[in-house]
Amino acid sequence: MPSDTPQPAFVLVRPQMGENIGAASRAMWNFGLDRMRLVAPRDGWPNPKAVAMSSGAGRLLDDAGLFETTADAVSDCAYVFATTARSRGLTKPVVSPERAMTMAAEKIAAGEKVAVLFGPERAGLENDDIARANAIISVPVNPEFASLNLAQCVLLTGYEWRRASTEIDHERIEMAGADWAQSIEIEKLAEHYEQRLEEAGFYYPPEKAEGMKIVLRNLWSRMRLTRSDVQMLHGIMRQMVRWKERGD
Amino acid sequence: MPSDTPQPAFVLVRPQMGENIGAASRAMWNFGLDRMRLVAPRDGWPNPKAVAMSSGAGRLLDDAGLFETTADAVSDCAYVFATTARSRGLTKPVVSPERAMTMAAEKIAAGEKVAVLFGPERAGLENDDIARANAIISVPVNPEFASLNLAQCVLLTGYEWRRASTEIDHERIEMAGADWAQSIEIEKLAEHYEQRLEEAGFYYPPEKAEGMKIVLRNLWSRMRLTRSDVQMLHGIMRQMVRWKERGD
Repeated sequence: MPSDTPQPAFVLVRPQMGENIGAASRAMWNFGLDRMRLVAPRDGWPNPKAVAMSSGAGRLLDDAGLFETTADAVSDCAYVFATTARSRGLTKPVVSPERAMTMAAEKIAAGEKVAVLFGPERAGLENDDIARANAIISVPVNPEFASLNLAQCVLLTGYEWRRASTEIDHERIEMAGADWAQSIEIEKLAEHYEQRLEEAGFYYPPEKAEGMKIVLRNLWSRMRLTRSDVQMLHGIMRQMVRWKERGD
Repeated sequence: MPSDTPQPAFVLVRPQMGENIGAASRAMWNFGLDRMRLVAPRDGWPNPKAVAMSSGAGRLLDDAGLFETTADAVSDCAYVFATTARSRGLTKPVVSPERAMTMAAEKIAAGEKVAVLFGPERAGLENDDIARANAIISVPVNPEFASLNLAQCVLLTGYEWRRASTEIDHERIEMAGADWAQSIEIEKLAEHYEQRLEEAGFYYPPEKAEGMKIVLRNLWSRMRLTRSDVQMLHGIMRQMVRWKERGD
């Protein structure tokens, strides 16, 4: 059974190679999409090559709806997008994948059913299919080189669906079980280094000493050290002192 | 020669299959990226399987930089991102592809060189590679199913680079050579239909006529008709009248 998450249906129209149907199912499930519909797949259905390629996303193929025509496949949908690489002599809104999936998320939240049509590998959708769509999705590719395959087009659209429908964590710090050092620990580290470097004759000439200390303190705070980083830096300095004291 | 467009270098670290290097070159060039660097490709370099798979983007392979180590490959870069699917016991910022490529665009505009590391197909980057990176890129995939391959990871990162570095046209209307109808033309169309439908006895009962006319006028304006749509609608009505007058 498909998941309960409200989402658009991705409709593969007259797909040719089973492998590409399988790859599309994986691309969809990467972004949590599991409502696939198929219109007249060239090599019949089910297709063992699709199953072989879908590893881990095979459930999407088991649950896929099979239709004879594009009209049948979208009959329950209130809004239909068509993906196409080239311009088609039809007066129709053309939107970016980002805008399309934002629109889809709004419509789905309002209870409407939305479908996205993807054409066959070689030729893409026919104008007869596109005339049934409310808007066209055009991926902003390099005008000198537009060569997205079926699964890549599904992948980018699915990626934009996930961006539009879930809260993306744009930036976090992976802490690897470590805590950030507190100011007092950074302060003690700076003092430790200053004291030992003073003894070692590092701050020379004397009139530059203050500036050199500031540069080093600034470095410690700019680095955002963890507690274990601080311990390691203490250890490095202690070891250098021990080495010097061993005198070998 | 690579293009003059300032852009990040995409570094494939120890890639295994030549086909995947070729597919990555196509994924890059789809989004106008043509600075590929390779670190120790498993099957040597050049690789005929990469060339066969790169059709149309083969220039990227000819121009690709070849390096023995990750350190060599990024030695001229001021900021390095590493793509990785799983968490790595290293304290490091983790950013979304969108945030990463926005940062890259800012840094590149400020004259800094930026690289993005992509790991080998099976295992991904090693911690030794990741420790050289300033930040990690993590694609927001379905936590139950994260199965992006090398070329797909390159594709999504390249897509975000294009989104960050070029003005995307989020919505336009493809006009197919047509002009929008002007208000006066819509007005005349509405009058034509009202007059003929009046003669045909459509507006019945009389007390509902005004409301029915408003619904139809609202429909014409909501549809955003082109001049050729208006001509076709006039033609439909004229033909219905002719048919009635022929009386067959």
